[in-house]
Amino acid sequence: MTINLKNFLNDKNKMSKMGEFQNLKQMEGLEMSSVSADLYGNGRDDLSLFYFSKGANYATVSTSNSIISETISWNNSSHKKSIKGLMVNTKNANTFTGKQGKESLDIIAKNLSRILTLKESKSEKGTSETVRIKDLIFASTGVIGEQFPVDQIKDALPDLVEKLKKEHNKLFWLKIASGIMTTDTKPKVAYEEIIFGDELVKICGVAKGSGMIAPNLATMLSFIFTNADISSNLLRSLLKRAVANTFNAITVDSDQSTNDMVSLFSTRAIKLGQNLSLNDKIVQKFELSLKKLCLNLAKQIVVDGEGAKKFLTVKVINAKSLGSAKNIAFSIANSPLIKTAVAGEDPNWGRIIMGIGKSGEMIDSKKLKIKLGNFIVAENGKIADSYNEEKLREYMRWDSIVIEINLKLGSDAFECYTCDFTHDYIDINADYRN
Amino acid sequence: MTINLKNFLNDKNKMSKMGEFQNLKQMEGLEMSSVSADLYGNGRDDLSLFYFSKGANYATVSTSNSIISETISWNNSSHKKSIKGLMVNTKNANTFTGKQGKESLDIIAKNLSRILTLKESKSEKGTSETVRIKDLIFASTGVIGEQFPVDQIKDALPDLVEKLKKEHNKLFWLKIASGIMTTDTKPKVAYEEIIFGDELVKICGVAKGSGMIAPNLATMLSFIFTNADISSNLLRSLLKRAVANTFNAITVDSDQSTNDMVSLFSTRAIKLGQNLSLNDKIVQKFELSLKKLCLNLAKQIVVDGEGAKKFLTVKVINAKSLGSAKNIAFSIANSPLIKTAVAGEDPNWGRIIMGIGKSGEMIDSKKLKIKLGNFIVAENGKIADSYNEEKLREYMRWDSIVIEINLKLGSDAFECYTCDFTHDYIDINADYRN
Repeated sequence: MTINLKNFLNDKNKMSKMGEFQNLKQMEGLEMSSVSADLYGNGRDDLSLFYFSKGANYATVSTSNSIISETISWNNSSHKKSIKGLMVNTKNANTFTGKQGKESLDIIAKNLSRILTLKESKSEKGTSETVRIKDLIFASTGVIGEQFPVDQIKDALPDLVEKLKKEHNKLFWLKIASGIMTTDTKPKVAYEEIIFGDELVKICGVAKGSGMIAPNLATMLSFIFTNADISSNLLRSLLKRAVANTFNAITVDSDQSTNDMVSLFSTRAIKLGQNLSLNDKIVQKFELSLKKLCLNLAKQIVVDGEGAKKFLTVKVINAKSLGSAKNIAFSIANSPLIKTAVAGEDPNWGRIIMGIGKSGEMIDSKKLKIKLGNFIVAENGKIADSYNEEKLREYMRWDSIVIEINLKLGSDAFECYTCDFTHDYIDINADYRN
Repeated sequence: MTINLKNFLNDKNKMSKMGEFQNLKQMEGLEMSSVSADLYGNGRDDLSLFYFSKGANYATVSTSNSIISETISWNNSSHKKSIKGLMVNTKNANTFTGKQGKESLDIIAKNLSRILTLKESKSEKGTSETVRIKDLIFASTGVIGEQFPVDQIKDALPDLVEKLKKEHNKLFWLKIASGIMTTDTKPKVAYEEIIFGDELVKICGVAKGSGMIAPNLATMLSFIFTNADISSNLLRSLLKRAVANTFNAITVDSDQSTNDMVSLFSTRAIKLGQNLSLNDKIVQKFELSLKKLCLNLAKQIVVDGEGAKKFLTVKVINAKSLGSAKNIAFSIANSPLIKTAVAGEDPNWGRIIMGIGKSGEMIDSKKLKIKLGNFIVAENGKIADSYNEEKLREYMRWDSIVIEINLKLGSDAFECYTCDFTHDYIDINADYRN
């Protein structure tokens, strides 16, 4: 499914229609639940658990902000290759919460491991396997610096474990994706599958992150699950490569959360073969599907940007290096000047020139070619001969705008995604804590 | 004079009151004029000339944007140490104007040198000195990429030279400062003086730049004049040092113009001594006055930011290096998150934490101390014990807000200045070209 931006934006504040979402399927080896610990005071789901009774291989990419959540510190504290559970809470980021935040996490981990161990001992198979605290990882999203609501979460843990479900239909995936939302207006889910002999390799992903800045500083969380048996090391390589051109290619306001986290889990249900590497055909197929899924989720985050009315793609092509292409693309995508011009439907290409220049990358303005959609606006160091202001103004009324910068200096390219900058952005962020 | 921010902001759209401005004085050796070439179509002054019949020592600092105006290229083309004239036009930036822009500048330079040479030959003293095109420098501010209005400017040159005046009272300085404005709501002038024996060393400065993004991409221009005889090399050292903590310490939206330029001219009227260096007492006094003047002008630019309702000072102290202090200060000052919170009068210190972290600088969150005005909001890795939301909300209603970050890691510090981020910013920039 591709996102129908126009419908999506028009329907933004209405209840989501089921038909808009991909049909996510059962994931063997995964149990999920989402309950309310009443952190928002309105009974909405705010606590979620992803549980792998037989364990899961695991890889994660997290924020590069130098101040990080207690949850990120916890997850980083040991290089876990296999885990049993991931718990996610919203409303509170558990960042800059000091001793209270760290101790809260200890308390929650101990309680959760005890309750999960108890569940195992009662299971039909009677495997009575122990779930240790080091088998657990965490993600938090919400306000920074407020005391962590440890008691409310602790009290909700029995219910959270009790409600774990092994069967997942489309509706249940949407409930789970809704449980990790903060100010997102829609749950974000994506699905890909690959036929491998008689088996069906599935990839299911959920994400949250409300494009522009939300109460949680636009924390971006994404959890991706596959039934394919892939080692944690290979998952790590695949995830890093997928994130580079998807989750790391979106920007909304250049601010970066202390809690960002993207994780990829393998329930090991389907064996793809021994000693798999990036060169294996099935792994290459998997990588393509994973990238497609990540790009889908990343774009959903941008489209759901609060205040966003337009989707903006910035393509930089024929750069002398990838780094240079990336710098220029983000210099444009993060420019408030350009984003307000897009909101105002003004084909103001002078601001694009400014954005290219302020990246500090060496360019040759005589070679430079700039396109808005299919219209060339500048080339050979000046305005294009075919420049037609009227046609460009018409183009700028579209919901999705593409800026293409052809540097003609080399063969590297980078594409990034953002949204426009509107009045609603100011409204939402001027006093978000009330 | 210090800026009375409250009055200034309240009176923003009214005619400026003379009493708000410093009393700039006569500058020996300088002639000035400001006329209309009708570039805006409404008869306002848009063309200015600063002329030194006996030449002036000269130093300049210009934009680091890798795409630059034809005027900046012209000025850089020879390392001029002494010049005779500076012409400034508004409305058109002469950037990305290709061959037409470059040739226009040649035509204007030739005409201007001819007319000025003619003026000299007619002067009472009959010195009949030639003004060569390489004695001239230029500055432009306005829209990027539009054809340069060479004919209109050329036609206005005789009038521009004709109107040159050797006498400058306060009112005339304000006329000159108004002639270089684009969307600024007020002219920006500053004055400092130093008594040196029987002589009065004067420094007069004018500036333009409308804080937030203006039609001209917030091009910042400032021209500073002194009667003190200081060599071009020493002027360069003094200017570089002054700019670092003044014009280079202001930000409004992280965008940077292709035309920014700050120049310092000496008319050599007053001899301060031979072989002056930065260690001489009189030069040190001059440096202090120059820094004060530059900071005054820089703050006027921020205060005049379109859409700006509040002035924000970000102080980073006890950093392990100057670079680190600077990165953190600008990371906060450029954050749309923080600027919208300031506009909303929300003491949202969680966003400051995020801003510090996203700078990428290593910090120790347990040592970190954050103040809003005189109120400690966070220390020892958590919210301050004395935190009082009510008092902070009261403080955030002020017109001028100070954020202080004490890193407790070293002894370096940097302070920068910005404004808040309001609805008006979006209004002004959504479709500025119409």
